[in-house]
Amino acid sequence: MSDSEETGGDPADEPGAKGPLPAAGAAADGRDHGARRTSDRRGGAGAMTRRALLVGVGAAGGAGAMFAAMGALGLAPESHAPERKDFVPPRPSDFSLSGRGAAKVVVLGAGVAGLTCAYELGKAGYDCTVLEAADRVGGRNLTLRAGDRLAENGGRTQTAAFEEGTYFNAGPGRIAPWMVAMDYCRELGVPIETFVNNNASAYVYTRGMSAPVRARTARADMYGYVAELLAKASSAGALNRRLTGQDRERLGEFLRRFGDLGPDLAYRGSTRRGFETYPGVADGVPLGAPPSLADVFAAGMGRAITMDFGYDQAMPMFQPVGGMDAIVTALAGAVGRDRIRTGSRVTGLRNLPDGVEVTHQGGTVRADYCVAALPPHLLARLPHNLGSSVAAALRAPVPVAAGKIGLEYGRRWWEIDDRIYGGVTETDLDITHIWYPSHGYHSRSGLVVGYYNTEENAELYGRLPHHERRARALTQGKKIHGEKYRAELRSSLSIAWHRQPHIEGGWVRWPSYEGGFALLQRPAGRVYFAGDWLTHLVAWQAGAMESARKAVTELHSRVMRTPS
Amino acid sequence: MSDSEETGGDPADEPGAKGPLPAAGAAADGRDHGARRTSDRRGGAGAMTRRALLVGVGAAGGAGAMFAAMGALGLAPESHAPERKDFVPPRPSDFSLSGRGAAKVVVLGAGVAGLTCAYELGKAGYDCTVLEAADRVGGRNLTLRAGDRLAENGGRTQTAAFEEGTYFNAGPGRIAPWMVAMDYCRELGVPIETFVNNNASAYVYTRGMSAPVRARTARADMYGYVAELLAKASSAGALNRRLTGQDRERLGEFLRRFGDLGPDLAYRGSTRRGFETYPGVADGVPLGAPPSLADVFAAGMGRAITMDFGYDQAMPMFQPVGGMDAIVTALAGAVGRDRIRTGSRVTGLRNLPDGVEVTHQGGTVRADYCVAALPPHLLARLPHNLGSSVAAALRAPVPVAAGKIGLEYGRRWWEIDDRIYGGVTETDLDITHIWYPSHGYHSRSGLVVGYYNTEENAELYGRLPHHERRARALTQGKKIHGEKYRAELRSSLSIAWHRQPHIEGGWVRWPSYEGGFALLQRPAGRVYFAGDWLTHLVAWQAGAMESARKAVTELHSRVMRTPS
Repeated sequence: MSDSEETGGDPADEPGAKGPLPAAGAAADGRDHGARRTSDRRGGAGAMTRRALLVGVGAAGGAGAMFAAMGALGLAPESHAPERKDFVPPRPSDFSLSGRGAAKVVVLGAGVAGLTCAYELGKAGYDCTVLEAADRVGGRNLTLRAGDRLAENGGRTQTAAFEEGTYFNAGPGRIAPWMVAMDYCRELGVPIETFVNNNASAYVYTRGMSAPVRARTARADMYGYVAELLAKASSAGALNRRLTGQDRERLGEFLRRFGDLGPDLAYRGSTRRGFETYPGVADGVPLGAPPSLADVFAAGMGRAITMDFGYDQAMPMFQPVGGMDAIVTALAGAVGRDRIRTGSRVTGLRNLPDGVEVTHQGGTVRADYCVAALPPHLLARLPHNLGSSVAAALRAPVPVAAGKIGLEYGRRWWEIDDRIYGGVTETDLDITHIWYPSHGYHSRSGLVVGYYNTEENAELYGRLPHHERRARALTQGKKIHGEKYRAELRSSLSIAWHRQPHIEGGWVRWPSYEGGFALLQRPAGRVYFAGDWLTHLVAWQAGAMESARKAVTELHSRVMRTPS
Repeated sequence: MSDSEETGGDPADEPGAKGPLPAAGAAADGRDHGARRTSDRRGGAGAMTRRALLVGVGAAGGAGAMFAAMGALGLAPESHAPERKDFVPPRPSDFSLSGRGAAKVVVLGAGVAGLTCAYELGKAGYDCTVLEAADRVGGRNLTLRAGDRLAENGGRTQTAAFEEGTYFNAGPGRIAPWMVAMDYCRELGVPIETFVNNNASAYVYTRGMSAPVRARTARADMYGYVAELLAKASSAGALNRRLTGQDRERLGEFLRRFGDLGPDLAYRGSTRRGFETYPGVADGVPLGAPPSLADVFAAGMGRAITMDFGYDQAMPMFQPVGGMDAIVTALAGAVGRDRIRTGSRVTGLRNLPDGVEVTHQGGTVRADYCVAALPPHLLARLPHNLGSSVAAALRAPVPVAAGKIGLEYGRRWWEIDDRIYGGVTETDLDITHIWYPSHGYHSRSGLVVGYYNTEENAELYGRLPHHERRARALTQGKKIHGEKYRAELRSSLSIAWHRQPHIEGGWVRWPSYEGGFALLQRPAGRVYFAGDWLTHLVAWQAGAMESARKAVTELHSRVMRTPS
């Protein structure tokens, strides 16, 4: 800071604070808490080159080689890496200081859990092999683009006919800021942007309503009447036994603000409902009077109004720029593509006295340890010698159906006509949600998620051929958006996760967190289990990552306890 | 769509729908509603070249030349430009069809209102000259970067010591999706991104609280107790006269969801409050029990909880990528830099029988019409011959003080330590707000807005020398974020809008919308007035733009009525 009249005595005046930007990873002030492995999106040519070098090394030689190179560049992560307090990744120094050697590990499944295991183990130099049945990595972290083929059990296949630049996050689509997936984005240099999970301009539509209303309108009316009822009850003395006079006064002040009530404590509508004509040179023309209290209550808008109240859905949320699979691409690159064998469906798994043996379509792999990061219902079908308790535990979780459809339009009518920029329309129709894209604002075309449904609704759509899924999704969406929803469609692509080969479910539901869930937290001999299904973050990538970190921690701890 | 088993009968199968991406601005299907003047952020090299060409032409020859070039390229905006229904910009064809000539217009002030006037008039070929007192364009749309100097009335000057890549939106910082500023971003090809205006992870801190709490916690507790009170009142029969049994049942269902109440309708806390340890492999450890109802009510969190309920603050909001002045840069480029004379403070304004005469520091300009787009309190001081009613009207609006400070840190501690990605901390301290950046996530450094205050608070800070403003802001922010808020500061820069030369106010307050406000909507002779201060969107760029569109429409209509 160089206020012309000022001198000294301020933190900004510390030596170095005014200096030029230190090269990324070489901060001059010794206060570089964690930037060293972070891609600086604003970074200069030096930072980019350095990172490009590391990515290249990683791709060619795996994480071990990459981290060796980072050490040589003075970027070793041990220094100030932004690890969470609850996890310390294995380090090469663990071995070099103890005289032990890193073990060989075979990882089953190149989904987010499997890749995270291989990535974290690779930091210490473990010799990892990842076996993946599909011809691609990522598992349910799947982003589809022009030309991508999507096969389904049952023989149907689609090819994405999207325009160049359009993508469809067919699996996970959003990340909460407290989730460890954010840390991996930072650590791996995956740029992120805001995912709009709640939009006051999006619609709410229930079968109890004659026409869709904007979320802002639904909220204003519900809050208005709730505030009116409580303010009047308080005013009539109904809360006197519970509240002091001061409490009642404060409550009243809050309720007038919360419901935008009149001086008589009545709700008669509010500019919060929205406008026919927004204010400008002239004062605006607000939407008319609200429906009656009975009609507002009857509309059943509670789920929509509270959709982002939970800790996993609260705004803001985030997404990687360019598609969720940026996380997979970065993880797989860091692991080393040569360590991942796609098209290698596992056909058997055996604990041996001194290791594990995994058979797959392409042969047999022997290793010191195994991390089984497949869905439990697929593991359950695998011939293995892990014992009957494990076998029973693997059969316990129930796969849950989940489906999505991507609807591509050549015109972003939701922005131009409806002024909806990102966010979600909530409905009790069988499509459940419509997602508007939180990126590419104002560009020419875009992709709307026309349904994201689960359980019975997903099974219903999943049973249909693709063109009937689309037709049904359009018929439902048309109730909200009118004829353009059908007429302006450019292309579409749908996924039924319960019909996806090598996956067969959106996620799983545990009938109970006792028994099998607890058993599979522990290794079966030399076989460890990992996946979102082994956490309380089922269906979130963060669950897969947390589980992987636990498996890696325990595996590494065991290796370090083993006499060298 | 090329589902392998499907044929025909679908909108996606229309001719051309499966074809390759048409070149931007040359859509093959005739359904290109408005993309032609929009920068396609995903656009290929062809699109970029075309746009770069137009920007180049615009910079060299002004909007008239640019639009002529667009016509030559088949991009003439008349075809399908996404104009709002309430505004039709002047067109060259208005003149060519009527035999009239475009008039000469002098615009006072190169703020957003003045630039918008010149931009819209330029579309039809008006000969505009914009006089600007400062040495830069944009007025209150001001983005400060490394090396920028900021002078203040009273003689103090600061120079921004920010790192390369850091910017500080010292004026407007956010745009609501319904505002016309969004249309200008689309029309001018200014890329936008989400501005996080409400973040459940940000803090609420009032002097009624012993320590700051997360916004999610404040909301959960307030809603929990409100729901409990109303549910119990309903259950006790207090609403029976107002509500039917079915109403009460529906209300109860909503309240249980809204407040996350127990089966006994009591609020005892909720995972919505947040966690000590978020769920992962283990179930999470939620924050403890909520404070008592009386303590929650006493904390005075109502303003924070309802901050985004209004139509102008509801999520999501938006900002131009790279700084708010991208709008100014695009407008000024389209107007033509040669038409804008900076450093030309206006010193007099006279209606003549057949035109207007404006004197300024650099000379005199004669024109057919004038649009006065200066703040009213500065216009009021100008020698003019517009009459005593106009003079009185210009003295009516009262300038409002507003201030901001940008605090730059070398570490994004709010993301790393607090998991706050964008959004606003609300407080009743004199700093009022702390804004966290909605861009550059996970990059090395970043800038927090340490206060954004108005009226008395802004006057208080504005009276202090810069280093005392900073010290006070840090003392206050430290109450919320602890010692790092002071210790890790890298540089800072503060603005007091009421002390800015040629501006002298954050915005104005009209004592009444009668009288002067109405009078100045009409021209005084050949002098039109424009600015956010002439709208019901005072302090918003959209107000300046709406007012400019109105002035342009009326001026052009008058020109077209004038016998040719």
